[in-house]
Amino acid sequence: MSEKLNQLKEILGEVTDLNRAASVLSWDQQVNMPPAGGEARGQQMATLGKIAHEKSTSQEVGRLLDDLKNELSGSDSDDAALVRVATRRYDKDTRVPAEFVAEQAVVTTAAFEAWVEAKGKSDFSIFLPHLEKVVGLVKKYISFFPPADHPYDTLLDDYEPGMKTADVQKIFDDLRPQQVKLIKAISSAKQVKDEFLHKKYNEKKVWDFSEAIITKFGFDWNRGRQDKTAHPFQTTFSVNDTRITNRFEPGSPLATLFSAMHEAGHALYEQGSNPAYERTPLAGGTSLAVHESQSRMWENLVGRSLPFWEHFYPELKKSFPSQLDGVSVKSFYKAINKVEPSLIRVNADEATYNLHIMLRLELEIGMVEGKFAIKDLPEIWDAKMRDYIGITPPNVATGVLQDVHWSYGAIGYFSTYALGNLVSAQLWEKINGDIHDLDEQIRRGKFDALLGWLREKIHVYGHKYDPQDLVQKVTGSRIDSAAYVRYLTRKYSDIYAL
Amino acid sequence: MSEKLNQLKEILGEVTDLNRAASVLSWDQQVNMPPAGGEARGQQMATLGKIAHEKSTSQEVGRLLDDLKNELSGSDSDDAALVRVATRRYDKDTRVPAEFVAEQAVVTTAAFEAWVEAKGKSDFSIFLPHLEKVVGLVKKYISFFPPADHPYDTLLDDYEPGMKTADVQKIFDDLRPQQVKLIKAISSAKQVKDEFLHKKYNEKKVWDFSEAIITKFGFDWNRGRQDKTAHPFQTTFSVNDTRITNRFEPGSPLATLFSAMHEAGHALYEQGSNPAYERTPLAGGTSLAVHESQSRMWENLVGRSLPFWEHFYPELKKSFPSQLDGVSVKSFYKAINKVEPSLIRVNADEATYNLHIMLRLELEIGMVEGKFAIKDLPEIWDAKMRDYIGITPPNVATGVLQDVHWSYGAIGYFSTYALGNLVSAQLWEKINGDIHDLDEQIRRGKFDALLGWLREKIHVYGHKYDPQDLVQKVTGSRIDSAAYVRYLTRKYSDIYAL
Repeated sequence: MSEKLNQLKEILGEVTDLNRAASVLSWDQQVNMPPAGGEARGQQMATLGKIAHEKSTSQEVGRLLDDLKNELSGSDSDDAALVRVATRRYDKDTRVPAEFVAEQAVVTTAAFEAWVEAKGKSDFSIFLPHLEKVVGLVKKYISFFPPADHPYDTLLDDYEPGMKTADVQKIFDDLRPQQVKLIKAISSAKQVKDEFLHKKYNEKKVWDFSEAIITKFGFDWNRGRQDKTAHPFQTTFSVNDTRITNRFEPGSPLATLFSAMHEAGHALYEQGSNPAYERTPLAGGTSLAVHESQSRMWENLVGRSLPFWEHFYPELKKSFPSQLDGVSVKSFYKAINKVEPSLIRVNADEATYNLHIMLRLELEIGMVEGKFAIKDLPEIWDAKMRDYIGITPPNVATGVLQDVHWSYGAIGYFSTYALGNLVSAQLWEKINGDIHDLDEQIRRGKFDALLGWLREKIHVYGHKYDPQDLVQKVTGSRIDSAAYVRYLTRKYSDIYAL
Repeated sequence: MSEKLNQLKEILGEVTDLNRAASVLSWDQQVNMPPAGGEARGQQMATLGKIAHEKSTSQEVGRLLDDLKNELSGSDSDDAALVRVATRRYDKDTRVPAEFVAEQAVVTTAAFEAWVEAKGKSDFSIFLPHLEKVVGLVKKYISFFPPADHPYDTLLDDYEPGMKTADVQKIFDDLRPQQVKLIKAISSAKQVKDEFLHKKYNEKKVWDFSEAIITKFGFDWNRGRQDKTAHPFQTTFSVNDTRITNRFEPGSPLATLFSAMHEAGHALYEQGSNPAYERTPLAGGTSLAVHESQSRMWENLVGRSLPFWEHFYPELKKSFPSQLDGVSVKSFYKAINKVEPSLIRVNADEATYNLHIMLRLELEIGMVEGKFAIKDLPEIWDAKMRDYIGITPPNVATGVLQDVHWSYGAIGYFSTYALGNLVSAQLWEKINGDIHDLDEQIRRGKFDALLGWLREKIHVYGHKYDPQDLVQKVTGSRIDSAAYVRYLTRKYSDIYAL
């Protein structure tokens, strides 16, 4: 057995090397690449992807997995987990024909370009025929898999292994009325002031402050770095080389701080993965939702908390004395948590964010079910925006066309953002049970106990446990919304004196 | 035939993609990578190299090349050149067993580490056993190839295709007495002053000035960039993404300018390669010597000329008024061309540089022939230094241990540096025949005619012609030293009033 396992690990190690090399090329494309370099870079990444796919779907891998999974089934060992995770990927990768993958690449490349143009001109008709094709391909993709309880299950499983459409719907059905109720209460309360957040702030100083914060979190600069890109993201080349990117928007200058905390949250997860999992499919984070629970926790539960700013605000005020003149830490805390129903998901506050996600989930399920014509999407979008958030987009650019995801066929992805919020609160309650003076530690700028807890309970396991199993193992229950509602209610009752 | 050609190009295209991806990983390692990232990066690069090697030495490639080379032989077409170049690489790659390559990797990795330590402690005995192993492997490498006129021919051919040991010896034998004579004459002349070159210069301003210069040369920033590394180098990811690196040494602050010109010379060659050669072995520069002819031309024949500084010096003086106060352009020109017999090759001036190379060539040939024991190398080195340059190294760190090349087995490489100098002067005479007012153009900061000439006569051909054939085609003669001696004599007769 151990020889077969070694053979499997050797092949999967090479596949990992190829995929990580592709990640370096992609990072470089977004951080450094001169403008004309794109065509060759696309070709290089396509070649790496093709070879990785050939290797990971080879008959040899199939035979090794078949032999090993019988021998290891029922074991809780790392090797058993490796075989389980690798088998799931192998099954998925081998079900989808290479010609389909090639067709999908062509369709989504064109769809992405059409989306850019359509959004620029705020004209849905430019994107419509492409989105129709994308949805057609998504349905075809589903057809390669055995029938599930719901066709959308197949999509969701790619991003959140083991999660069912019905599970997410149940979670969101519980959550929706409570979030809507909270927002209504907030909208009738006395509003908070935040005009000092939109003054002019020096970019270099904000950037340096963001790095000072994540250094305190425990981001390991010996094993990572932060660079500038158009859109912030986190990427991993190895457990010892995990990078984040960030941006500076003059219109909301301090957003850079929260982006850094968010991406560092992802990076801390990756930096904490068991080094023994390197070059195997167990390395990294177990799912998008659990990953998002980490980024959201550091950004929101830590970074938008009062104890956090009781520690950092004096320093921030020293860096920006004129901008923050006369602003107390409590006023600053309220401002960075201001609730304001708004059009754009990525700018949404914690109280409204999940509603943006629910809207998208319903539309995605509708598209997959063929419940409505794609051409009617803008209208349905606007109606739901009025219903959930209480505002109507003035145009499709700030409405149905705002997100890039559908253009590249990523249908099934959005829910993981909201699920990540819920998991972050579930973990937070558990952590506060285990670390009784956590608020006090944060107030003193101490994050080592928190990071240590996350390392031990979440990070070190990589992909070993499926997301629901991991959440169950750590918190005693599966993903649900109760903790998040308690968190939101407590926080906003204080801020808005509800 | 065209179908076989397409099959070959498809495979070689993937091999190119893999090699270029490895170049991106290597560039990132030297420019960006956090300290702990090295182990995984090495593994990723090894996997890319292994797969590229498997693909390029496959039996399929062998069959395709066999079929195609008969059909295309004698043709001057690009396709015939591609098959010729690919066949040569295939023959070399398939002669060397994979186990040898693996053994070599292990030996040279250890040798490199030993060299770092030995140089640091200036203790040759630490490096000695490793160098003995390296030389043993080099001899074994030679044994995989058919006997040549001289065993060293096999090594030389890897770096300078078609060049023979006897050719290089003949060229160097002509050159040596003339360079030695010139240096003697210079040493008895009145010396030039250069203390203003060693004052404190602002790094950012020097860096910006270096970029202003290479922009005027025609370096295309849309297809390239300059970054900071420990040692300057140039690397290519595609004809549309060619990067250079540079450094700033406070001890010789303006060296940054000449490094930028040198590396930009390499990059201009790569940027000028025929775009139709992309993803084939014809892309890039034809040999190390021809590549070096380009870098040396822009650095020395252009960048250390009087007309060049008649254009740029007023601007330089504006940037550094106090450092260059009272220094005329002629004095500046003399200072940057100061001849000073010195220990270190990479810092050597144009008059002495080639002598450093000749010394190394003789020692390398001696090692391959087994003419002396490796343990006697330091002594032989010092004797030759006294003989050629007139000084004795005070220790091995500044003597026989100064260069990294032998530690990674690159024996046969050094001559290409000197050959590049010679070719640069041969081309320069030809260019001045074709562009009669070249000096005047340079004096006006105009480089487009020069770059246009190089593009048309050299750059566009990539690897199509072997180096000696290309030099013959362009200048009417093969590589020789006459033009370089004329250039040096004219230049230094003026500077030192000989």
